[in-house]
Amino acid sequence: MVGGGQLSRMTHQAAVALGQSLRVLATDPAESAALVAADVQLGDHRSLADLLRLADGATVVTFDHEHVPTEHLHALEKAGHRVAPGPAALVHAQDKLVLRRALAEAGEPQPAWAEVSTVHQAVAFADGVEWPIVLKTPRGGYDGKGVFVVRGPDEVAALLEEHGTLLAEERVAMVRELSAQVARSPFGQVAVWPVVETVQRNGVCAEVLAPAPGLAEERATAAQELAVRIADRLGVVGMLAVELFETGDGVLVNELAMRPHNSGHWTIEGARTGQFEQHLRAVLDYPLGDTAMTSPVAVMANVLGGAAAREDWTGPSLDERIHHFMAHWPDVKLHWYGKGQRPGRKLGHVTALGDDPAEVRARAVAAARYLADGVVDDAFAFEHEH
Amino acid sequence: MVGGGQLSRMTHQAAVALGQSLRVLATDPAESAALVAADVQLGDHRSLADLLRLADGATVVTFDHEHVPTEHLHALEKAGHRVAPGPAALVHAQDKLVLRRALAEAGEPQPAWAEVSTVHQAVAFADGVEWPIVLKTPRGGYDGKGVFVVRGPDEVAALLEEHGTLLAEERVAMVRELSAQVARSPFGQVAVWPVVETVQRNGVCAEVLAPAPGLAEERATAAQELAVRIADRLGVVGMLAVELFETGDGVLVNELAMRPHNSGHWTIEGARTGQFEQHLRAVLDYPLGDTAMTSPVAVMANVLGGAAAREDWTGPSLDERIHHFMAHWPDVKLHWYGKGQRPGRKLGHVTALGDDPAEVRARAVAAARYLADGVVDDAFAFEHEH
Repeated sequence: MVGGGQLSRMTHQAAVALGQSLRVLATDPAESAALVAADVQLGDHRSLADLLRLADGATVVTFDHEHVPTEHLHALEKAGHRVAPGPAALVHAQDKLVLRRALAEAGEPQPAWAEVSTVHQAVAFADGVEWPIVLKTPRGGYDGKGVFVVRGPDEVAALLEEHGTLLAEERVAMVRELSAQVARSPFGQVAVWPVVETVQRNGVCAEVLAPAPGLAEERATAAQELAVRIADRLGVVGMLAVELFETGDGVLVNELAMRPHNSGHWTIEGARTGQFEQHLRAVLDYPLGDTAMTSPVAVMANVLGGAAAREDWTGPSLDERIHHFMAHWPDVKLHWYGKGQRPGRKLGHVTALGDDPAEVRARAVAAARYLADGVVDDAFAFEHEH
Repeated sequence: MVGGGQLSRMTHQAAVALGQSLRVLATDPAESAALVAADVQLGDHRSLADLLRLADGATVVTFDHEHVPTEHLHALEKAGHRVAPGPAALVHAQDKLVLRRALAEAGEPQPAWAEVSTVHQAVAFADGVEWPIVLKTPRGGYDGKGVFVVRGPDEVAALLEEHGTLLAEERVAMVRELSAQVARSPFGQVAVWPVVETVQRNGVCAEVLAPAPGLAEERATAAQELAVRIADRLGVVGMLAVELFETGDGVLVNELAMRPHNSGHWTIEGARTGQFEQHLRAVLDYPLGDTAMTSPVAVMANVLGGAAAREDWTGPSLDERIHHFMAHWPDVKLHWYGKGQRPGRKLGHVTALGDDPAEVRARAVAAARYLADGVVDDAFAFEHEH
């Protein structure tokens, strides 16, 4: 697996059960997966030589991020290595303009968009929708990076100067964000999980609610079918997360991830087969596992570096916080990534299961906040009860 | 963790979620845990030097077997290392005579027993109970090894000559075997799982049924309380499995394991907190996790090297068998240990969950048999339905 982050770390855990061991390409021995995997290669995912060394003797090459240059993926295939997802599919998760064109061609629902290289083009697009518009770098963005809400021509000019060609999108009047995950094998077998609601804060995923509360069954089924159609059409092998905007009328495709995704961490405990195991089954061409939920409700909350990650923190240490967390929430499952603490960084996540969506959510969020900030915030639970 | 087998392998998986990484002392780089852990030391668990090297810089030293010489455990403690479980507790899992004396002193239920060094002593004991009797080597036995059913004085003489002092036990007229697992922290917090039935074949654990079918609630509670009393009295830190004989009247203690145990593999998916995570919580002095079952019934079946592990096997390969297994049982969870295949060896296990004890058992056993022997044995399912 190219990339040594937490997705790779959790994929290794799943690999162990399948009798496999993940070889990890990490840039630093202190990366999340490099700390726990038996077979770690240090290298750069932008170096073809490093990728070829990783692929040598491996059954298949897969990814924990989208940042490998597309031409290197083609070169790996040319050298006889199996790459999953393949470059022809993965480019749709790497390049937002390529994705928009493909979805337009397929007639799938998406926000109004345009490719813009000049201020004139951006203004013409904005006149057709409404200011503000959203400008996105076609490549390299994640967790809100590379996404700009733009209120007028001046801001457009500055961004075009910095980034070159951009993707312009209407600012969607959305109700909330959803994610539909599907796994697809080389054989074409697909497996879908229930559609979830993803709650973002400052452009970063904070919570995932499974299943998406109050989502009409028809709309959930339509979103799953959309995800399956996209996976089939693009020839995805492995996990695909289709990030969606829910509007008054239905759903629009925001973007794709072709790997295990933050919106599927809840599946480790919340589904019979978790996304990490399923990704491995798919890329190794094994039959896919059952995706039924193990509990009526599952909520995942990210632990983002907070007050306790600051240098001037004088409250309980991480070890003390984990002690208190375990004592207070003996049934909430911890996944800690072993990374250095830094404000805003995804340091771990917790998953709570149960029957009552509001109670499960309050429990997961309170636990994650305690780990991040060292305080128990009762206000939050209250807010969500009413 | 001393030992590189599957218990260590699965403990590493659990360690990853807690933000930890397990350092493994393995005797061979091809051992189960050595294949997947980041920090593997090759060495001998009977060498104090190797144990001291393992302990250097580790938070705590723990074990995936009972074979470390007790004096080395004391030496590790003397050198300032934390050892969990400590030698004063662990010796009861290492030496069956020490265990019998301790249980006698505590007044806990156990089979009639005697320490025998001469044929005369053995015959005197047998006359008080009934031939055949069971002779056991006090140390070093596992999976039926070191256990002998003896029908008369001649056999006794041969065994005493070979092994020296032995433990003699009455042959218990038992209904079945049970296992009560408890975790205990240094602080004295304990957590118990439901009592399970363990089904042995040729002295090796074949299936574990959770909870033990038809076990009266009073008797289950009594077995749990017995396990907690033993853990407290012996000062166990970590996991304790109390292997029990169920008789017409109640339960008798067979033996103890102070580590994750085959009778608890079902807890990975079948309980909110699995035994491997719980062992780590206990030995690291974290609060223990919730042990509630995630499903009404869980059945674990070991995959023991069978027909397909023989050299003359011409049926489907392991990889093909895993394919068929996954296709046929998408909801049965696989744990494959990555070891070389050999008849009788524990190669992996599967866990099935559900509502109906007979159906869940038939599913788990059929899946394990298919992996082991390459055949689907419908007769088994039938036998258990009727």
